[in-house]
Amino acid sequence: MTDTHGWEGLLREGERLDDLQRDGLRLIQNPSWFCFGMDAVLLSAFAQVKKEDVCLDLGCGNGVIPILLAGKTQGKSFTGLEIQSDIAEMAERSVRGNGLQDRVKIQEGDIREAVSVLGAAVFDVVTSNPPYMTGAHGLLNEADHKAVARHELKCSLEDLIDNATRLLKPGGHFFMVHRPFRLAEIMHCMVSHRLEPKRMRMVYPYVDKEPNMVLIEGVRGGNSRITVEKPLIVYKEKNVYTDEVKRLYYE
Amino acid sequence: MTDTHGWEGLLREGERLDDLQRDGLRLIQNPSWFCFGMDAVLLSAFAQVKKEDVCLDLGCGNGVIPILLAGKTQGKSFTGLEIQSDIAEMAERSVRGNGLQDRVKIQEGDIREAVSVLGAAVFDVVTSNPPYMTGAHGLLNEADHKAVARHELKCSLEDLIDNATRLLKPGGHFFMVHRPFRLAEIMHCMVSHRLEPKRMRMVYPYVDKEPNMVLIEGVRGGNSRITVEKPLIVYKEKNVYTDEVKRLYYE
Repeated sequence: MTDTHGWEGLLREGERLDDLQRDGLRLIQNPSWFCFGMDAVLLSAFAQVKKEDVCLDLGCGNGVIPILLAGKTQGKSFTGLEIQSDIAEMAERSVRGNGLQDRVKIQEGDIREAVSVLGAAVFDVVTSNPPYMTGAHGLLNEADHKAVARHELKCSLEDLIDNATRLLKPGGHFFMVHRPFRLAEIMHCMVSHRLEPKRMRMVYPYVDKEPNMVLIEGVRGGNSRITVEKPLIVYKEKNVYTDEVKRLYYE
Repeated sequence: MTDTHGWEGLLREGERLDDLQRDGLRLIQNPSWFCFGMDAVLLSAFAQVKKEDVCLDLGCGNGVIPILLAGKTQGKSFTGLEIQSDIAEMAERSVRGNGLQDRVKIQEGDIREAVSVLGAAVFDVVTSNPPYMTGAHGLLNEADHKAVARHELKCSLEDLIDNATRLLKPGGHFFMVHRPFRLAEIMHCMVSHRLEPKRMRMVYPYVDKEPNMVLIEGVRGGNSRITVEKPLIVYKEKNVYTDEVKRLYYE
């Protein structure tokens, strides 16, 4: 919890204001819904946004990705699409609190209808930190905010990739963080939709452990050749980040 | 070069006899063609062969994979299919020199015709260390033995995966070593042919370098979920293997 000076009137009961530790950016979060994790930080470091790029984040949640990318890049505009209205409204307040209204816009809406609302082939960059789990297996309450963020209740992986491709300009770039256990499905789906996987990085919590995240870049209509990058190791020992992860967080 | 006692009459001019450093196994190689590399050693360690399994190696070259697997597992039989007759003949001499004729058979033939020769759905395990490069780009002589081993002149990745699937029993296992830059194509092709990727391991030469090999296991008709294993790091410093690689080579 940081000093809320300048954020008066933007915080609601049960919410907290977190410091994004970059460029003075802050984010409103509701811990009873869900909070952003390392996934979002690593995705915003992996994504490459060039000057004047028109960018879209699919399923933006509390807005962490568009806010971070607006803070660290010279992209022209950042749209965050979020299906849950109360979360979209909270993200919009974080945009205002950071004074980013000119470049970041939160749009309530469904990924599966995004092309009709936002237009086809209009974005240079599409990012997404989608739900990782298929279906509703093990869920007690499908209306739960955490459930929608974690399970493919509103949008399948194929819906996401199909729509991301159509939203991107030819040659536009897609950046996603996901779980390694879905990797074969992700690659099959991306290649099938001509959103060619061009760059991938495995994120290993420790050098001798299985990866728990994978970062993937695709290019709409790209040719078939992928660069797999050096491993991203998160911890050198318990509670101690590696130097690279420290840099990703704080530089 | 090792002592050739017991191999009299099996070696031809220009060939050498190498110690496989496992179970007293040796291998005839012709350095002017090509020699087996770490790829083959890592693939034979990654492959899982159970007692009584019927196994096939597609594009066996000098026979290193079937000979190593026959030495270290209790598989019932190991067929090595090789399209180049002189290399197949050399592999056959290595089988005889090792006294493995009862369990290892080298078959001269084309992967694209393997089902008609060997039968459909007859193998528990199919392994392959295929050519890594597409087409004939940059080649001076397509008839060259190294060219056929390194470039997809005789058999494309799709030919390999299509035929491996049809040769495997339902539920049978496919193990392959390949280059990471082909990963998206590999996964797309495997999923398309219902040879579902189930296990993968990235091989990084050093902990801070891009991977130069990928090991993949597929299951014919498996469901969609892959386990990505901890990274395999080859060197801890120049010319010094990590402990894990030492174990793979010598245990």
